[in-house]
Amino acid sequence: MGGDHAPAAVIAGAVAAVRDHGVRLVLVGQAPRIRRELDRHGVAGEIPIVHADEALDMGEGALASWRKPRSSVAIACHLIKQGRASALVSAGSTAGVVATSRLRLKGQQGVMRPAIAVTLPTEPRPTVLLDAGATADVKPETLVQFAALGTAYAQVRLGLERPRVGLLTIGAEPGKGNKLAKRAHELLAAGHHDVEFAGNVEGHDLLTGAVDVVVTDGFTGNVALKTMEGTVRMAFGELRAAMTASRTAKVGALLQRRRLQALRDRLDSDTYGGGVLLGLNGTVVIAHGAAEERAVTAACRLAHDLAAGRIVDRVRDQIAATRTSRFGRWTHGERDHADAEHEDGAAPPPGPVAEEPAEPVPNPAVPPVAEVLERPEQP
Amino acid sequence: MGGDHAPAAVIAGAVAAVRDHGVRLVLVGQAPRIRRELDRHGVAGEIPIVHADEALDMGEGALASWRKPRSSVAIACHLIKQGRASALVSAGSTAGVVATSRLRLKGQQGVMRPAIAVTLPTEPRPTVLLDAGATADVKPETLVQFAALGTAYAQVRLGLERPRVGLLTIGAEPGKGNKLAKRAHELLAAGHHDVEFAGNVEGHDLLTGAVDVVVTDGFTGNVALKTMEGTVRMAFGELRAAMTASRTAKVGALLQRRRLQALRDRLDSDTYGGGVLLGLNGTVVIAHGAAEERAVTAACRLAHDLAAGRIVDRVRDQIAATRTSRFGRWTHGERDHADAEHEDGAAPPPGPVAEEPAEPVPNPAVPPVAEVLERPEQP
Repeated sequence: MGGDHAPAAVIAGAVAAVRDHGVRLVLVGQAPRIRRELDRHGVAGEIPIVHADEALDMGEGALASWRKPRSSVAIACHLIKQGRASALVSAGSTAGVVATSRLRLKGQQGVMRPAIAVTLPTEPRPTVLLDAGATADVKPETLVQFAALGTAYAQVRLGLERPRVGLLTIGAEPGKGNKLAKRAHELLAAGHHDVEFAGNVEGHDLLTGAVDVVVTDGFTGNVALKTMEGTVRMAFGELRAAMTASRTAKVGALLQRRRLQALRDRLDSDTYGGGVLLGLNGTVVIAHGAAEERAVTAACRLAHDLAAGRIVDRVRDQIAATRTSRFGRWTHGERDHADAEHEDGAAPPPGPVAEEPAEPVPNPAVPPVAEVLERPEQP
Repeated sequence: MGGDHAPAAVIAGAVAAVRDHGVRLVLVGQAPRIRRELDRHGVAGEIPIVHADEALDMGEGALASWRKPRSSVAIACHLIKQGRASALVSAGSTAGVVATSRLRLKGQQGVMRPAIAVTLPTEPRPTVLLDAGATADVKPETLVQFAALGTAYAQVRLGLERPRVGLLTIGAEPGKGNKLAKRAHELLAAGHHDVEFAGNVEGHDLLTGAVDVVVTDGFTGNVALKTMEGTVRMAFGELRAAMTASRTAKVGALLQRRRLQALRDRLDSDTYGGGVLLGLNGTVVIAHGAAEERAVTAACRLAHDLAAGRIVDRVRDQIAATRTSRFGRWTHGERDHADAEHEDGAAPPPGPVAEEPAEPVPNPAVPPVAEVLERPEQP
């Protein structure tokens, strides 16, 4: 129900994900409106619906998560907790989705704060940036955990065994940055984690693919991401103006319009596939609020891939291998080789600061849709 | 002596500033090398030289300001203190130039921390962004002072009477951001300053010209600026690749290459004209380390214009009108109308926190070059 073009664009995107990509999904929201939209696409009855009385408004922030216990996002979280869904996708307001899913899904054991990971369109493969805005004020220890979350995410999403992790700051040398970044650098350089730390990166490295994962606090990350989006938008606006300003330029523009369109798409924000909220007991994909059909389809595919890749388990393993302070508890014994395996399947040791009460991790495998279909309108 | 292409490019840029734009300047550095360069340009004897034994290396940071009391930057600061120069231009390492000029010129009375202001290439006029990296860790009160510094800068550089000032954060509403930004918003919204506060801006507003001045801490500002530069570089790299990839695209590219080059120049970093360190007893222009001749010329012209616009006096007036806390001293009486004038010319009242010992403000008028010429090699 969330997003500037909801529910029409969201449902159209979901239908395309089902039809063209075989994603199995449940639509959560106001059942009559959803059914009407499905009718328009000629797929009524083919995609299960779970009714939700309420929906978060785009302007609503953190408080809405308490005020609206039966919002579509809250109901979707409930399906995840019941093991009837593995992931949720929303194009609603980021603040509302983050607050609601933090409240309903709870943080994973040992995770201090959740982070939003996005992928930047670098070559030859994307770069993961986190936190893109979930947690504005963090401690240095939180950044170390973000490095672990980002590592797990890059492993699942990009298929890298040991992604290289950089710390976003304002100088390449270890002593550069604000107090937060300097201390985080010390902690990351000191080890006690299963992260391949590659040192500091700067703003101009974000799009060069210098590292696979860039770690920063949610304030800086959000400013950087939005600056990037604004710059791309401005550059192409200027370009269009330059190209159509003269007759010769116009001819040139006609000859290459298609190529430029493809380039623009690659750089533009809504092909990033959406941000992923990491560190909760379930996978949450937040599509851009202005998401069109195509962006929603990409977000649904991403949610499917992450659930299939067991992202929640990978995050659990990474956090278990991360000791964020000298005084943190450590029950696995000293870990001398960085690529040690966690095959025991036992619950990880509690981290030094477990902000949220721990809950059992739900089975992240995709549940058969039939389970949900049994009672399609009563969550 | 500083910069990747020093001293050749720096001297070439300075010569162009003298020849083509009538800027009066003194070259500070190793006299024999400078003389040789001036010979090559055929202007030996026309531009005064002040000898400096040492020079800051590009890799040197804050400590160099203590280790090298006779670096070219330190000597240039000395000329400003003596009233024999009004401004200094350097393409040296930002950390070194900031530390040296803070140490030698001292902060202006009442200024808690200096800030680097840069201009972003927005339409119809540039946008001032500060702090671009002088002070990484700040208090909310410092951001209020940065708003005052930015206002003075926009008045002198852009000729605006009441520039609109925005606070960089991660949401348009007052309650959005990290603790620093939220508190700074409260202080700015509460008044007690001579700043036209226009509310929050986000990363994607930096290049839309939504406000005239964007205020943020030096960490976030530096990340945003470098992200912007990296994005422009990447977008044009991609563009070039797209244009030369096919034969028809190539024909199109030929037809419009000149226009695109002009566009790229406008967006590219070294036409920004350099960052300006505000809040010290003298004007300091820091050209990009990779500055080529053209960028140095732009920096020299900027330094001249700022000195002619009496930027140090304008900052003094703005800081005098800014009370950063309830407990700050306030000797001008309550200022009810925001556009009150400061015509008395008296020294401003000390601000609530004067981090550096106060020094008399030097006369910022451009001194006649003859004064310096009298003893060209003994500062």
